[in-house]
Amino acid sequence: MSSEISIEALLKRRKKGYSLEAPFYTSDEIFKLDMEIIFGRHWLHVGVEPDVAEPGDVMVVDIGKTSVIVMRDDDMELRAYHNVCRHRGARIVLKEKTSVGNLVCSYHQWTYGQDGELLFAEHMGNDFDRKCRNLKKVHIRSVGGLIFICLAEEAPDDIDRMAAAIEPYILPHDLKNCKIAKTVDLIEKGNWKLTMENNRECYHCVGNHPELTIPLFEYGFGFAPDGTNPKRMEHAAKYDALVQSCHTGWEASGFPSREIEHLTDTTGFRAERLPLDGAGEAHTKDTRSASKKLLGSIAERKLGALSFWTQPNSWNHFMSDHIVTFSVFPLGPDRNLLRTRWLVHKDAVEGVDYDLNRLTEVWEATNQQDADLVEISHNGAISPAYEPGPYSPYTEPLVEKFTEWYVGRMAEHLLGKQAAVSVAAE
Amino acid sequence: MSSEISIEALLKRRKKGYSLEAPFYTSDEIFKLDMEIIFGRHWLHVGVEPDVAEPGDVMVVDIGKTSVIVMRDDDMELRAYHNVCRHRGARIVLKEKTSVGNLVCSYHQWTYGQDGELLFAEHMGNDFDRKCRNLKKVHIRSVGGLIFICLAEEAPDDIDRMAAAIEPYILPHDLKNCKIAKTVDLIEKGNWKLTMENNRECYHCVGNHPELTIPLFEYGFGFAPDGTNPKRMEHAAKYDALVQSCHTGWEASGFPSREIEHLTDTTGFRAERLPLDGAGEAHTKDTRSASKKLLGSIAERKLGALSFWTQPNSWNHFMSDHIVTFSVFPLGPDRNLLRTRWLVHKDAVEGVDYDLNRLTEVWEATNQQDADLVEISHNGAISPAYEPGPYSPYTEPLVEKFTEWYVGRMAEHLLGKQAAVSVAAE
Amino acid sequence: MSSEISIEALLKRRKKGYSLEAPFYTSDEIFKLDMEIIFGRHWLHVGVEPDVAEPGDVMVVDIGKTSVIVMRDDDMELRAYHNVCRHRGARIVLKEKTSVGNLVCSYHQWTYGQDGELLFAEHMGNDFDRKCRNLKKVHIRSVGGLIFICLAEEAPDDIDRMAAAIEPYILPHDLKNCKIAKTVDLIEKGNWKLTMENNRECYHCVGNHPELTIPLFEYGFGFAPDGTNPKRMEHAAKYDALVQSCHTGWEASGFPSREIEHLTDTTGFRAERLPLDGAGEAHTKDTRSASKKLLGSIAERKLGALSFWTQPNSWNHFMSDHIVTFSVFPLGPDRNLLRTRWLVHKDAVEGVDYDLNRLTEVWEATNQQDADLVEISHNGAISPAYEPGPYSPYTEPLVEKFTEWYVGRMAEHLLGKQAAVSVAAE
Repeated sequence: MSSEISIEALLKRRKKGYSLEAPFYTSDEIFKLDMEIIFGRHWLHVGVEPDVAEPGDVMVVDIGKTSVIVMRDDDMELRAYHNVCRHRGARIVLKEKTSVGNLVCSYHQWTYGQDGELLFAEHMGNDFDRKCRNLKKVHIRSVGGLIFICLAEEAPDDIDRMAAAIEPYILPHDLKNCKIAKTVDLIEKGNWKLTMENNRECYHCVGNHPELTIPLFEYGFGFAPDGTNPKRMEHAAKYDALVQSCHTGWEASGFPSREIEHLTDTTGFRAERLPLDGAGEAHTKDTRSASKKLLGSIAERKLGALSFWTQPNSWNHFMSDHIVTFSVFPLGPDRNLLRTRWLVHKDAVEGVDYDLNRLTEVWEATNQQDADLVEISHNGAISPAYEPGPYSPYTEPLVEKFTEWYVGRMAEHLLGKQAAVSVAAE
Repeated sequence: MSSEISIEALLKRRKKGYSLEAPFYTSDEIFKLDMEIIFGRHWLHVGVEPDVAEPGDVMVVDIGKTSVIVMRDDDMELRAYHNVCRHRGARIVLKEKTSVGNLVCSYHQWTYGQDGELLFAEHMGNDFDRKCRNLKKVHIRSVGGLIFICLAEEAPDDIDRMAAAIEPYILPHDLKNCKIAKTVDLIEKGNWKLTMENNRECYHCVGNHPELTIPLFEYGFGFAPDGTNPKRMEHAAKYDALVQSCHTGWEASGFPSREIEHLTDTTGFRAERLPLDGAGEAHTKDTRSASKKLLGSIAERKLGALSFWTQPNSWNHFMSDHIVTFSVFPLGPDRNLLRTRWLVHKDAVEGVDYDLNRLTEVWEATNQQDADLVEISHNGAISPAYEPGPYSPYTEPLVEKFTEWYVGRMAEHLLGKQAAVSVAAE
Repeated sequence: MSSEISIEALLKRRKKGYSLEAPFYTSDEIFKLDMEIIFGRHWLHVGVEPDVAEPGDVMVVDIGKTSVIVMRDDDMELRAYHNVCRHRGARIVLKEKTSVGNLVCSYHQWTYGQDGELLFAEHMGNDFDRKCRNLKKVHIRSVGGLIFICLAEEAPDDIDRMAAAIEPYILPHDLKNCKIAKTVDLIEKGNWKLTMENNRECYHCVGNHPELTIPLFEYGFGFAPDGTNPKRMEHAAKYDALVQSCHTGWEASGFPSREIEHLTDTTGFRAERLPLDGAGEAHTKDTRSASKKLLGSIAERKLGALSFWTQPNSWNHFMSDHIVTFSVFPLGPDRNLLRTRWLVHKDAVEGVDYDLNRLTEVWEATNQQDADLVEISHNGAISPAYEPGPYSPYTEPLVEKFTEWYVGRMAEHLLGKQAAVSVAAE
């Protein structure tokens, strides 16, 4: 009856330009493979340097069943370790955020240094070789202040290329000298890929995001050319001209702005600085800055928003006065956690330089609206009547690129590099 | 160890006259097959015409993972569609009950007409063929005002025979001109078949249903002949005589009453009008009508209760003044939803013609008592010590018929028509 | 990808002296086998005779999906039956504790005597053979007032040896003439074996149990000899001398005290009476008795604590004034229930002879601390980065013995007796 089909077959027959077949959103088996392949072997966006600003600061990040200690050591270096004691496996750090000297397991007080070395383990006797029991390391890397980790033995090395390409865009916003004004965790009741697909298009914005569409231009994320509607074509042409002139001006002032796209890389990413509507300053309800203190040495408020999207799990918006970052953590086939951080200049004072509600209200509202859309998408995908539907070639090409990246990455690991290419080339 | 046995083998070795083996009540795999075969390919009782009384009225019905839009179009026809947008699969109607002009998906505003045709989808370009993206239809059929749907490509055609046989019984109660006085959803913590088995006998009534046994005669659902208890035999004989005389009288007045039974049909059903105790009018605590306004053109209050049972998932009681309908929706191997509706004449006024509590109290109490019995049955069935026990040949023959129908339907789909017959004939 | 490995292979390659591989703590399949083999075929500690003190007293015990009626009949004998009606499988006794004459199923009033015989079943007709429908029996056995049951067809017979060895230790505490002052159920969020491993060592006590370490000597559960710390060696030597002198004194007074260990038996167990710190009387915060009335004919308060550990699921502490018993009931791979009972002399009056809070506070605190440790152990074991770590040869030998017993029992049933021996001998 319920005929089973292998994930390999599903990957091979994936139809370009269409949403994925249901098992990619609903199956426990594919979810396990997603965690093993996508989240187990790629660079993941997990936070920002201000999460661990001071020596000894620790943040725990859970990637599925894997718990990771992200910390800053006394030499201000970033470190990451598996949060598993080498004695009987207890979790070592229990709080999401804390500050430590050494890392001490509460079960039997095994004590590890900031470099992961086992310093102390009582009652183990003279034959015990402490050196074999150091904490297991996790790859960690800051890209312009955004923290990425990789759980694989060998991490993809193209993160160097991403860093080289994107840091000139990000560094002027001086993320390292920001502070986190607020972090919000939102559980989305759908597969993590539905959250990512939702993020990769703004076709749904006009009908669902009354707050976000104040600063965002409707034409900024594609539209179908429609000869029968000359007014619309006119608006679109005006928008294109605006983007060109903004880019030219910003780049002349030292703010790289033009699109860079490497969405098919192993460490896939894309970035572009886009003008905003109204005052053009920020993702706020009045389109003006949310914080009086501008970031780094920025003097110009009207910088639009530099957006930086990474595969598989993030998007980030850098404005002249604040930064918003988003990390997606899958919790199950039908559930994921979206962690959003709002950052302002580290010297900005709440209530004086910025109002917290004004800073966060657009994205708090938008995130909830998106969570609702992800939930109704997931609830549709579980129906036996669901079948893949067509992406708009005009408003959803980036959804297709996310999906293609996902299919390609899965295929490379499950079918081998050769096959992955032929899947992508179909 | 835990030796596995196939459902095919379990079906073949099912012992007549005994409850089912545990996996039929507890296994995830068999639950999936139940949803695919029983709930995926048979006519299901999902509501009543007054649920969607007006043009544009919509009711969403969830059958396992399948969400169905049941609606009345502007021509007063019933329509049913899969509640899945043909774009990226979002659920279209989110509320359980609403009223619409067109069906609009909230994600990207794809808009479908009441006939299911895709009328509007922006940004899809000139190559996009809208006709391939109409809503998927679901079979829908009213039988005397009771709404049945079927999720299969081809629906069993013997529903025509059921309609022809049962409508003369039901139509005098004029269900279409009733209104729903109350709908109650109750989660029962047991397999849906335990709920159905519980419904198919009244052996448990005397010990568990103090309210229901006021209007119901103890002898109405069978008893063991007991030569040693002459008083009981006398009561039973009296009851039989009462049924005969009632049937004769009611049929003479135009109310078909005698048992019709087609419990082995694909669309299995059974009906009979039975006298009630006391005043004989209704399932109320004083056995008198709950509503002053009688249904349709009925003039006689003392019509007993016409009961209409359908496979796999309903029972219904039609009295002179009100109707009670019950639909069972499986939620998991160990959980189902029982939806009960009480209907009165559409012109009856609450507080004037009927008291809502009096109308519903017998079945609200009875449903909860049955839910408790279903839960203790399920909790017993999960025990490794459980084994099928014997049904009483006197009080549980209709339980056996339900179980046989289930086994026969599963066998036909899993083993083929030939085998199904031989299973049933064993 | 996710390479699967059989439990047989995991058992065979288990490395002595190390914690188990992750699937033993996390896999659904191994949990099912644990329930089938360990909890389905061994003697389980489920309560104490005072749980069912009077004729007709009933206690329901749930072992996974199996519900058992434990009762005392009118002849004061202990009886145990599967809590499943032989008609349609309903649970018969619904409350955790009650008192009955006969056992009556609430569904259709099938009635069983205290000996399990079906006495009454209406409507079943003349061909019905009641004798085939008696309740299914479960093995039950009191060992010094502690109640053990076994779900297997044939129970391991070495419980006789355990009883013969341990009753001289227990009987002076006269458990049968105690009353239960309090029972507390605590859900521990980890595999049941992690709860047992936690119980089998006190390496974690100094860092986690501020209350328990008041009466308990640090050296009572092993330590690593450390020539470089002469003070510690001196303390340890003193402690050994104390144990020797206490044992000598207590045994002379008729209280067997020296260690008996049969941890590799099918019905594995271990016992020893150990001195306590301070006043040496009880597991209380001031180390003095919690109850004024001493147990049985005990006259000496300072008897330390007789500890009696059984495989797979209990530990018990007998003091001069009170007894504390612990039973572990697995609920899932990641969850178990710890039921703790505090018993005092049956004539002791709360508020007069004992203060309930003082009686229970040490173990209530300790249990919660251990539950937290079990949870962090489980959360570590689910990480792909977890691998078995070394037990301390000085402080964790009894953890190793529990683990060896578990591996040996599983191997005997899955690989045969021959293989079990060779696994154990590796």
